[in-house]
Amino acid sequence: MYYFARNIVKLQTTLRSAVFAFSIRLYDTRSRWWSLPSINLGKGPVRPIVQGSLRASVIHRKQSQSVSLLCFYSCLRHLYLSVMPGKPKKVCIVGSGNWGSAIAKIVGTNAQQHDNIDERVTMYVYEELINGKKLTEIINETHENVKYLPGIKLPPNVVAVPDVVEAAKEADILVFVVPHQFIRTLCSTLLGKIKPTAVGLSLIKGFDIAEGGGIELISHIINKNLKIEMSVLMGANLANEVALEKFCETTIGCKNKRIAPVLRDIIQTEYFRVVVVDDVDTVEVCGALKNIVACAAGFVDGLRLGDNTKAAVIRLGLMEMIKYVDAFYPGSKLSTFFESCGVADLITTCYGGRNRRVSEAFVTSGKSIEQLEIELLNGQKLQGPITALEVNFVLKNKNMEDGFPLFTAVHRICTRQLEPQKLIECIREHPEHVINLLENIDHLCYNTVDAGNMQLPNPI
Amino acid sequence: MYYFARNIVKLQTTLRSAVFAFSIRLYDTRSRWWSLPSINLGKGPVRPIVQGSLRASVIHRKQSQSVSLLCFYSCLRHLYLSVMPGKPKKVCIVGSGNWGSAIAKIVGTNAQQHDNIDERVTMYVYEELINGKKLTEIINETHENVKYLPGIKLPPNVVAVPDVVEAAKEADILVFVVPHQFIRTLCSTLLGKIKPTAVGLSLIKGFDIAEGGGIELISHIINKNLKIEMSVLMGANLANEVALEKFCETTIGCKNKRIAPVLRDIIQTEYFRVVVVDDVDTVEVCGALKNIVACAAGFVDGLRLGDNTKAAVIRLGLMEMIKYVDAFYPGSKLSTFFESCGVADLITTCYGGRNRRVSEAFVTSGKSIEQLEIELLNGQKLQGPITALEVNFVLKNKNMEDGFPLFTAVHRICTRQLEPQKLIECIREHPEHVINLLENIDHLCYNTVDAGNMQLPNPI
Repeated sequence: MYYFARNIVKLQTTLRSAVFAFSIRLYDTRSRWWSLPSINLGKGPVRPIVQGSLRASVIHRKQSQSVSLLCFYSCLRHLYLSVMPGKPKKVCIVGSGNWGSAIAKIVGTNAQQHDNIDERVTMYVYEELINGKKLTEIINETHENVKYLPGIKLPPNVVAVPDVVEAAKEADILVFVVPHQFIRTLCSTLLGKIKPTAVGLSLIKGFDIAEGGGIELISHIINKNLKIEMSVLMGANLANEVALEKFCETTIGCKNKRIAPVLRDIIQTEYFRVVVVDDVDTVEVCGALKNIVACAAGFVDGLRLGDNTKAAVIRLGLMEMIKYVDAFYPGSKLSTFFESCGVADLITTCYGGRNRRVSEAFVTSGKSIEQLEIELLNGQKLQGPITALEVNFVLKNKNMEDGFPLFTAVHRICTRQLEPQKLIECIREHPEHVINLLENIDHLCYNTVDAGNMQLPNPI
Repeated sequence: MYYFARNIVKLQTTLRSAVFAFSIRLYDTRSRWWSLPSINLGKGPVRPIVQGSLRASVIHRKQSQSVSLLCFYSCLRHLYLSVMPGKPKKVCIVGSGNWGSAIAKIVGTNAQQHDNIDERVTMYVYEELINGKKLTEIINETHENVKYLPGIKLPPNVVAVPDVVEAAKEADILVFVVPHQFIRTLCSTLLGKIKPTAVGLSLIKGFDIAEGGGIELISHIINKNLKIEMSVLMGANLANEVALEKFCETTIGCKNKRIAPVLRDIIQTEYFRVVVVDDVDTVEVCGALKNIVACAAGFVDGLRLGDNTKAAVIRLGLMEMIKYVDAFYPGSKLSTFFESCGVADLITTCYGGRNRRVSEAFVTSGKSIEQLEIELLNGQKLQGPITALEVNFVLKNKNMEDGFPLFTAVHRICTRQLEPQKLIECIREHPEHVINLLENIDHLCYNTVDAGNMQLPNPI
């Protein structure tokens, strides 16, 4: 290919004007990125050259300089690849709990229908014995995850694999859906064993503790440890209802306009509707912070304060979510909070959901969170109090507790530093009621991804 | 006063520089409007002069011309009035239903505590006989609206008046809280009988039909018919819970920065928290459109579609509310939808509220809306189906039904043109899922009130 490119030098002068028009037309098509099929730029020694040429052509486009050889080469390759169908993408679901199995059902079904997705979808299953039989064997024979999603048939092209490296090694797209405490170990196991061109999609909710304290996003951990580009998926998606094919929406946060349509293809169905936004961190942070608000909503339910108070607490919680994102993830957009990952997920969590339920019981029973986790959740940890603790660590360090009275009160109530009855006292003089917060952060919504910092798409 | 002003001409030359510095300082204070006490500019022949001088001084400030006599006069008057306490404002509550009585309790209590509010608060009560005794007499003797807000004591300084002209004639602030079908008659009765300097605050939810079809906002009707400046109040405020002093929030939409603090003073309490925004129409439109979404939420409940679907329907409803406001009330702000009048009121209405309840029964019982109004609401009209009809009239006329599939489906279901089971089919291919709506209307949030069109404050 490289030698082929060298020969083109001879043609350069005569073809210059034609090539220029052609390349411009190609770029027009590119700017309407959603209509362009995904492009596989290949592997091996050719790849850096292609990337270099693409970069050169982007510079050319900005500076209106003459068309370079590399630009021309890039155009030819574009043409070649948009005519030739790309290799179907292999997908691996890393995780097989309740939510992982529901997503495996969706991805498996889509893989049967879309030409750009490889039909065989691997699902990493942590091996365990169910009545003396291996769970992977049960899934591969009966096509049902009898332990975590009983009663729901998985498509036969979803293959349970007990070894995560085996499951992930050929995947172009890795869908991470394991409990977040396992993510660092998982990354060490996978490091160097996956395709360098792979991309990830994280469905994992919650934060992780950064070294030295503070918060680290799960997608950032995966990105740092596995060196792959990460997108996230969050929304008002109770796994069982999704598995039963009840209509709902979800939000994918993806900065890469080339990857976004592929991710939508593997996830979207008639009943599971996807909206893609490029505000990735906000999508992920919403998925964690909502659990703090759900605790507050649960306290209000336990205190029998009524619908008005609950609506006020949810709204003030949403305002603190917005303020938190504005403070710690600059460049976010206000509009993202209107997506399924924002307001819809918050509502569902505050009216249904375990955080609300346990927090209500916390008030009515007077028992500790730990005791209720044993009684109501079979010993599983409740996410809200943990997230409240992590967020409080950050706020305290930055001397910002006063700006987040609801988050702070939830943490103090969960840790028995404050009576639940004092919740309303803490938010009565909320900053929202003194100044109109949103007047100050209206800039949120006209921040867009800085074009200057936008990386050249990492093709998959 | 006019002659006094003329004499100042002699001083003008020597005082010029001092006055200039002084006036600039006054304007600095004015721009931080919330810290300035409300100012009574007086009545009679002086008023036009003062207004003229204020206008002149504003022009001066913009064009950096020399300080005029009138500007100086205005400064002196400012100084005089900020030292002298303004006359306390008289408030009249026009209406005495469930919500009117709850608000009367709040305003009455505030009138006892704030010097800038006249202690006597009149409440217009439509006279009726309760066990042979007049309702106004019962209220004035027992301080309880036994018919519409039983069990709640009103402050003794709230005086029930059966004649609306008598109740309103001396009021500086008229709080309108009657059922919206009575508003036009009420305006004819009051026309010419109220203070020309009075301002209004509308708590009335719902639209009215404009002549020739289409929608007219209640506050616009009052403004047009009574020629008074109007603000609105909406929020997640179930009247009984407010009356029981359970904590909640509300939104006041008020364009006039001089009036806003006074309105907040008469409304805000320890348990009823006010946020003032200047996006008046959006606040009012939210209060009507939410009922359409609540019907959809009720259908979802009736169809037993689960939490995910309900969250998706509420979110898509919110998106259509935003889109509707963007289309028909340009200049609105996205941030207003995060206030109590927006997302909080929507949540409460979609989880509690009569529109949700009757719509659920509509699906489960198979009875008509009219039949259910008789059975469940003592014959009162349900607001959601009416608003859906009014909105559909507008959308159909503008050929915009396709852009609002949820609003359109609710109207068609209520009028038996569509089975409730078809609701989800109508929103499966929602415009939101094809393009990201919010990307297109991000401009909403950086529209502010156009300073060029901002009227000189109408002092009260």
